Amino acid sequence: MRPIVDLYSLSHYSFGTKETKVEKDTSVAARFDRLREIYKKEGMRTSVAGVLLVQEHDYPHLLLFQIGGTFKKLPGGRLRPGENEIEGLKRKLTSKLGPRSQNLVPNWKIGECVARWWRPNFETVMYPHCPAHIKKPKECRVLYMVHLSEREEFEVPGNLNLNAIPMFELYDNAQRYGAVISSIPQQISRFEFRMNN
Amino acid sequence: MRPIVDLYSLSHYSFGTKETKVEKDTSVAARFDRLREIYKKEGMRTSVAGVLLVQEHDYPHLLLFQIGGTFKKLPGGRLRPGENEIEGLKRKLTSKLGPRSQNLVPNWKIGECVARWWRPNFETVMYPHCPAHIKKPKECRVLYMVHLSEREEFEVPGNLNLNAIPMFELYDNAQRYGAVISSIPQQISRFEFRMNN
Repeated sequence: MRPIVDLYSLSHYSFGTKETKVEKDTSVAARFDRLREIYKKEGMRTSVAGVLLVQEHDYPHLLLFQIGGTFKKLPGGRLRPGENEIEGLKRKLTSKLGPRSQNLVPNWKIGECVARWWRPNFETVMYPHCPAHIKKPKECRVLYMVHLSEREEFEVPGNLNLNAIPMFELYDNAQRYGAVISSIPQQISRFEFRMNN
Repeated sequence: MRPIVDLYSLSHYSFGTKETKVEKDTSVAARFDRLREIYKKEGMRTSVAGVLLVQEHDYPHLLLFQIGGTFKKLPGGRLRPGENEIEGLKRKLTSKLGPRSQNLVPNWKIGECVARWWRPNFETVMYPHCPAHIKKPKECRVLYMVHLSEREEFEVPGNLNLNAIPMFELYDNAQRYGAVISSIPQQISRFEFRMNN
């Protein structure tokens, strides 16, 4: 009955470097200005993100981008208008983690939906439900489990660091990781993690 | 792809009163003394709990017991040694919510696993993962979605209050509801709630 996730040792994956992905926004204010512009044209924005797990010492770790000193981000991004969530997530994972060599791009296995968050206003706060009085939320963010293969060769944009963060560090740590990322341990507790070496 | 939960108005359910269920422990210390005794005899204890949802004003609410002034509890309880989680949860739901009239007992529909929590020591703190250094956790608590039928006649033990608590009240409110209950909004965000009147 329990959905299974196979976890492989972090050492099974290589992390090369590829060209820098320029962040589209240089400040939080700029980000919400852009979100507001897009909303006017396209309506609510849907973004997708992947929960990619590895193991170290038989304990689950989450792959997480760090940008600059403090900003943490799951691999993912915004869907194109009308784009399917699964296909859009594959596209974003390839853009953020795939190697430049096309034939080495992972065959991404997008699995179970982990969570769905709502942004009611053009502000940083998100909720795991759309508040009752909000008829037009500004963003919906969907997290999916990504089942990694036993070995992969990733390439990471030069301006990003990819870290493997243990569950106990994320749990109950919204101050450092924000509500979306710090809730992942609770959301994936329903899975059985099978440790592989 | 999204699992669906049909929610019916709280007014579809009646809540009668039945005989008091005496709480087995009169204090937190007494509770852990008992847990320690049971652990010695039977090993790790597994407990199960149900996530029962209704709607009010098209917004999801969780059915939650309140005992005395502050103690909040999901319907559920401890499994018997070797008992199946689903069957044990049905037994506990009938004991806590079922009417005395046997032929009115709901045909409980136990659905998806919502979360799995671990108690590493004989202490109140639980985690949504078993800490890496803990080889013998003392309790595992499993939460399941319970799909309610359109109408039911519940009966609630006289010493308990059953309340319908909106998601926004639970979210990010570990101080009032504890980590297990306050995490439910994040854990059930992956479901689609279909509002029925």
